[in-house]
Amino acid sequence: MLAAGPGIIIPATGFPFGPRPIDIHPRPAHNPSMQMQDCLFCRMNRGEIPVEKIAQNEHAFAIRDINPRAPTHCLVIPKVHVDNAREFEWNHAELLAGLFLLAKDVARLEGVWESGYRLAFNVGDAAGMTVHHLHLHLLGGRMLGPEG
Amino acid sequence: MLAAGPGIIIPATGFPFGPRPIDIHPRPAHNPSMQMQDCLFCRMNRGEIPVEKIAQNEHAFAIRDINPRAPTHCLVIPKVHVDNAREFEWNHAELLAGLFLLAKDVARLEGVWESGYRLAFNVGDAAGMTVHHLHLHLLGGRMLGPEG
Repeated sequence: MLAAGPGIIIPATGFPFGPRPIDIHPRPAHNPSMQMQDCLFCRMNRGEIPVEKIAQNEHAFAIRDINPRAPTHCLVIPKVHVDNAREFEWNHAELLAGLFLLAKDVARLEGVWESGYRLAFNVGDAAGMTVHHLHLHLLGGRMLGPEG
Repeated sequence: MLAAGPGIIIPATGFPFGPRPIDIHPRPAHNPSMQMQDCLFCRMNRGEIPVEKIAQNEHAFAIRDINPRAPTHCLVIPKVHVDNAREFEWNHAELLAGLFLLAKDVARLEGVWESGYRLAFNVGDAAGMTVHHLHLHLLGGRMLGPEG
């Protein structure tokens, strides 16, 4: 059973709402110089997989989502490997600023600065996280629905 | 017309996808000590509006959303006034770390740490931002839909 909020209990009908059967994504300790050999976004960062980088700064690069859920759907990706937003520590402060400043550039470049946009990190299975390298979704270009 | 992505043009059928007729939320310059007199979240921070703060740290406090879109729906709110994520500058690095570390605490407290959750900033009208004081949505407790 999962206590999901005040007075609300969701029956544990299956993963991810039952016990996690096995952790298939063991989390390495954070290391700013770390590059994961087979990680998709680490390979893009190293230039081993060709991809259009629409913007970048010291800490992050931005690409368009391959499966867009809105007319504008970009990903802002840290250059160092961080698994997901569960890993954040105080020493990620500059990396976070780098991500969110690059997101401002992307919003301007993609023409959604004035109309509005959403910035979202997915964490774990319930949010549908698929690539296990932190990435910030930037969505806009239409009136967006609920956050989840 | 709004250029919304590669090759995609959305007709300007109305606000926010036409020109903004008037800016009803003029943005003040960032000032870490700034407290807005009539801002809802600044008043909550000062204790002038009673609200259950489910967690807090030096930089932020967390409450439950009054209009939840998921079994768990909390807001992580900076104690200083920042209008929205368009305002981020390099000097917000520590504030960002404070927000995202408090979000980790909230995910654990609300029982969604293992199952997964989404963290989202809404920016402007297309994302449905209603309170013009930065706040990070944390949603979980069920399988979440698309980011927008």
